[in-house]
Order: sequence, then C-alpha cells, then structure tokens
Amino acid sequence: MTPKTFNQLVALLARLPTIGEKTAQRMAFFLLRSPPDYGQALARAIEDTLQRVRLCSRCFSLTETTDNTFCKFCEDSRRDQQLLCVVESISDQLAIERTCEFHGCYHVLHGALSPLEGIGPEKLRIRELLSRLSNSNTQEVIIATNPNVEGDTTALYLTKLLRPMGFKLTRLAQGLPMGGDLEYADKATLAHALTARNSL
Amino acid sequence: MTPKTFNQLVALLARLPTIGEKTAQRMAFFLLRSPPDYGQALARAIEDTLQRVRLCSRCFSLTETTDNTFCKFCEDSRRDQQLLCVVESISDQLAIERTCEFHGCYHVLHGALSPLEGIGPEKLRIRELLSRLSNSNTQEVIIATNPNVEGDTTALYLTKLLRPMGFKLTRLAQGLPMGGDLEYADKATLAHALTARNSL
Repeated sequence: MTPKTFNQLVALLARLPTIGEKTAQRMAFFLLRSPPDYGQALARAIEDTLQRVRLCSRCFSLTETTDNTFCKFCEDSRRDQQLLCVVESISDQLAIERTCEFHGCYHVLHGALSPLEGIGPEKLRIRELLSRLSNSNTQEVIIATNPNVEGDTTALYLTKLLRPMGFKLTRLAQGLPMGGDLEYADKATLAHALTARNSL
Repeated sequence: MTPKTFNQLVALLARLPTIGEKTAQRMAFFLLRSPPDYGQALARAIEDTLQRVRLCSRCFSLTETTDNTFCKFCEDSRRDQQLLCVVESISDQLAIERTCEFHGCYHVLHGALSPLEGIGPEKLRIRELLSRLSNSNTQEVIIATNPNVEGDTTALYLTKLLRPMGFKLTRLAQGLPMGGDLEYADKATLAHALTARNSL
C-alpha cells in the first residue's frame, strides 16, 4: 500500500531493539515530516558511527579511530591505575561512570558466561584481561558483573583465575535498592541484605 | 565518556518519537553489534525515503517519485471512484486499508482543525479536497476524522462546506469497540452506543 522505499525503511527500523512494526511506521512518518536535514544527519551519524567507532584494544570500551591508540578512559592518566573494574557491557560501564564514585580503570568482557547459550570463557575478553593484568600495577580488581546467574558464574570463574595472581578481589555490594520497600523486595535480595547486614 | 560520533548518533536517535535517551543508547549499541550491512542499509533507506517518497498531488497520501503522476491508490482504476474517504493522516488511511472493507478513494487532510494549536482550515488539505470534488464523479464522502474534539470540529466544518455541493455525507459509526466491556467503557462511548442503538 505504501511505497516500497518507505516499507523498506519501516522494516529496517522494526529490527531495532524495543521497536515494533507500529512504532517503526511512526518513526518513518516522523522522519518524513521533519525538516530533511534531520533525517540526513541521522543517516550520516549511523554511517559515521559504523566507520569510526571501534573497541579500545586495551579495555574494549568504545573509542574512535581519530582518537589515540587507546580510549579516553585508558588514556586518562588521572584515573587510578591500581583499581580495575570488570564489567559485562559498555552500558554497565556507563552506569558505573554516571555514579561519579569510581575513578579507576575498566575492562569490558562483552558478555557473561552462559553454558546454556554456548557462551564460554573464549567468547569473552577474559584472555585479554589476564594478559593485561599480568603486566600492570593493578592492586584491586572489582568484579562488577550483574547480580544474576550468568554474572555470578562469571564472577566465580574470574575469582578462580585471579586469586592465584595475588590481586585483592571485590564484588559490588548486594542488598536493598535505594528507595526500595522491604514489603516488595524479593526473597533473595532480602536474604542477601540480612546476611550482609552492617553494624551501626 | 563515549566517543563524540557515538554520542551524536544517540542524540539524533533520541529525537525519534517514543525514544528516550536510554533506548537511543541501546539502539546505537545494537547498530554497532549488528553486521555493518544492517546499519548501512538503514542509513541508505533513510536517505532514499527522504529523496524519493513524496505526497501524491491528488490525495496527499505517500507515493514515490519513480511511480506515475499519482499514488497507487489514485492510479488504481478498480477502486470505486464514487466513494471518497477523508482521513486526518496517512496512518489513519493505512488503518482503514487494513480492514479490507473499503474499496473507494482517499483524501488525506494532514491534520485536524485545532484553533488552540493554531491549525485553521488553510493548514489542512481542504482547498485541494474542494477543487478535487468539484470535478469528479464522487457520490459519497465518508468523513473519517478521529472521534475526538478536533476530529469532530473538522467533520462539522467539512459538512458545512460539502453539504451545498450535494454529496451524500457519512461518518464512521461510533459505539462500543469489539471485545470491549460495558463495565469499562467510558461514559461518552456508552452514551453514544445507547443513542445509536440498532434494532434487531
């Protein structure tokens, strides 16, 4: 019913995460209604990102080909080189960065161990983590994987690997979330909060 | 924190309807993770749509520059030329088309009268509707504007304009929606359904 070019655009937009057929159509109409320079800028931004953005060869976070060898995090000499935070994804890294509480370095694994989905250690950036740690002055490794089965498995695996290397190993605290309600907290979270209770 | 090119892409994606900062970031990561030909195809589809897709000069629905003078609806001689359905938007036209119940022609107003938002008759495709109707063999005009204040205002306005021209004028039936529940129907809808009750 609608022109082929338009349908093609809708189909491609609908492949984006969280976007269904209807939202994709709405987005396509929005692009047509907006001043053409918006759509042109968007198309160019997609192409530029694909061309220029790559992973840092040290921490596997995002960086640009125009930047230096490593990413901005790795190049920043003000960051604490003795502290390394291991995360599952770049989004997790950005979440930690938003807290403004961490000033060390990062290492992005790009996934978590999941035997059911066939994700073994060789699919994560674990080899690179080990070689990076073997010649660095890192003192503490914070294993900031997600508090779920895959994240816990990954943390356990990393602990076994890193313990013999003599690093101080830590994990993010688990307990009740800020603004949370005891009544509505799930069993596992509440149990954790009880076990790890702090003295006042 | 993230590369400039990447931030630029996220900012542009976040301007799309229903997309917030977080979803935009998720979409950008998805584009980076996907095979590069997906992102390239998406960028090209946006550019192609902006370049090629335009409004039909007769019904103001979508058409392509590569197509004939008018859109596929207008060019289709099998469609009933005596029946014209006036809709607010192309999405509304597509919704009607999906019912497979209508085989006449369309006219897209591209909006509804809304004095509060400064949308007067001159901002809609009403002049074009009148000139189109003045030399056509249309018998019935279905005013399929939305059942809300703006849509009703537009329908009233069009009725006043078209009544003297001698067309049969109709509006979409209002009442309870399919699968609806009397208990949860709003007052206005239920009142309408009562007033417009059908004899069995």
